Amino acid sequence: MRHIHVIGIGTGNPEHLTIQGIRALNATDAVFALDKGEAKAGLVGLRRRICDLYIEERPYRFIEAADPERDRRPADYGVAVEDWHAARAALYESLIAEHLDEGERGAFLVWGDPSLYDSTLRILERVLARGRVTFTHDVIPGITSVQALAAAHRIPLHPIGEPVRITPARRLPRDGLGAETGATVVMLDGDPRFEGLDPGLTIYWGAYLGTPDELLLVGRLGEVAEEIRRVRAEARARHGWIMDTYLLLKPAP
Amino acid sequence: MRHIHVIGIGTGNPEHLTIQGIRALNATDAVFALDKGEAKAGLVGLRRRICDLYIEERPYRFIEAADPERDRRPADYGVAVEDWHAARAALYESLIAEHLDEGERGAFLVWGDPSLYDSTLRILERVLARGRVTFTHDVIPGITSVQALAAAHRIPLHPIGEPVRITPARRLPRDGLGAETGATVVMLDGDPRFEGLDPGLTIYWGAYLGTPDELLLVGRLGEVAEEIRRVRAEARARHGWIMDTYLLLKPAP
Ligand SMILES: C[S@@+](CC[C@H](N)C(=O)[O-])C[C@H]1O[C@@H](n2cnc3c(N)ncnc32)[C@H](O)[C@@H]1O
Ligand SMILES: C[S@@+](CC[C@H](N)C(=O)[O-])C[C@H]1O[C@@H](n2cnc3c(N)ncnc32)[C@H](O)[C@@H]1O
Repeated sequence: MRHIHVIGIGTGNPEHLTIQGIRALNATDAVFALDKGEAKAGLVGLRRRICDLYIEERPYRFIEAADPERDRRPADYGVAVEDWHAARAALYESLIAEHLDEGERGAFLVWGDPSLYDSTLRILERVLARGRVTFTHDVIPGITSVQALAAAHRIPLHPIGEPVRITPARRLPRDGLGAETGATVVMLDGDPRFEGLDPGLTIYWGAYLGTPDELLLVGRLGEVAEEIRRVRAEARARHGWIMDTYLLLKPAP
Repeated sequence: MRHIHVIGIGTGNPEHLTIQGIRALNATDAVFALDKGEAKAGLVGLRRRICDLYIEERPYRFIEAADPERDRRPADYGVAVEDWHAARAALYESLIAEHLDEGERGAFLVWGDPSLYDSTLRILERVLARGRVTFTHDVIPGITSVQALAAAHRIPLHPIGEPVRITPARRLPRDGLGAETGATVVMLDGDPRFEGLDPGLTIYWGAYLGTPDELLLVGRLGEVAEEIRRVRAEARARHGWIMDTYLLLKPAP
């Protein structure tokens, strides 16, 4: 039986890797690095570097492939994700069938943690459901960008004893934050306009977290929103890509 | 100047430690292990084991102390937390003054990640505000119990593209989950009764995550709630303590 490790590798710092992740890598025959249009971001390069740094016990194969393109402005978000996942399942299936023999171990290296806005686990479930290749798999947790953000700012995510909400930008209510949460982490915001948000909110913003290019800004939203948009646009132009995340905290009552 | 590393050590598996955490430990003169009434849970023991396992480059001092008791059934939750934090700030201040010389490095080992329901960072800010000892500090992220839960169940935390809410049990709405979130992670639930919750919710439950005693249960809340309560009570009686977390997912519409 084939076995696949789904390994969270953290958010850009190779030292985010856990001992558990390193141990799994060292039991691996083939490492699958799927390029989700991240080539520009050097993210496949990071995966290779992690393997170079930490795999010492055995030879392994490094399998690179391009993930199918995703429709970024779909008419119907649900249908677009569905099509994209189906295409990826077919790809992953053929990669596994072709590059991993029965009895061998493979690894998928996942940015951050596999549980947060990453589809690797859903795709592998689909591959299993298709029934053409079989394997067992396990998941090795990794540092998320949410934790990297809090660590860089040296803050807890929430006011004492209150909930934290983690949300993709497209699910932020247009009319601002609901009454119930003290803390909201926003991910996947391609163009932060902070529309409808209380200017009295405190924002902790971070980009390229965990990498040598890390950028941090903090302040009242009303005072720093413009600066964040400016710094973000400049950095994005300079690097050709950006990944950023921010935490919004309500003012203490 | 003194420097303090606040290091997330993960949730019970010494292999949750990151390379970054291990590197910081190896630059440390004194490790502070505060016993938050966790003695029964062997949590101080885990901290000592982590130091034994990973610190090889230099001698270090292992400083154990008992955290002040917290009022578990306070008349006023806010005041009780405030008093408790003040007592702890005084303790941490004296530990640092007594056990860490100018120019030395110390480390606080934090269960899971320092950003999630842990007060070490707030206490250190208070110590700084008191102004009697000075130090710089940084934070090294660790694997949270939330990620350990998702990894053990091999699931994403949320339906595709939806928010995740992480909440202490005491902030769960009495009348069940609000309309807006697809996924809710509940922590710090001393006695899960699942009051007011839709029996159609799917629950992913985990206890002692990351340890050899890990327990997992999954199912429709209406079908597994009783079993979770029974398994939990038995395990708690056997071990003398329990730590558990669960994810609630709404049925797909
Ligand atoms: C598809 S999600 C993947 C999240 C990842 N699985 C994790 O655990 O962090 C990508 C989003 O994560 C955030 N992100 C990932 N890496 C980041 C980094 N190094 N700095 C800032 N934000 C990051 C950004 O909000 C980005 O839009
Ligand atoms: C005071 S909070 C600390 C959380 C920690 N900082 C983290 O990052 O996971 C303690 C709560 O975390 C959860 N928890 C911590 N360790 C756990 C474990 N090994 N298994 C299950 N739940 C755990 C439980 O809900 C527990 O009540």
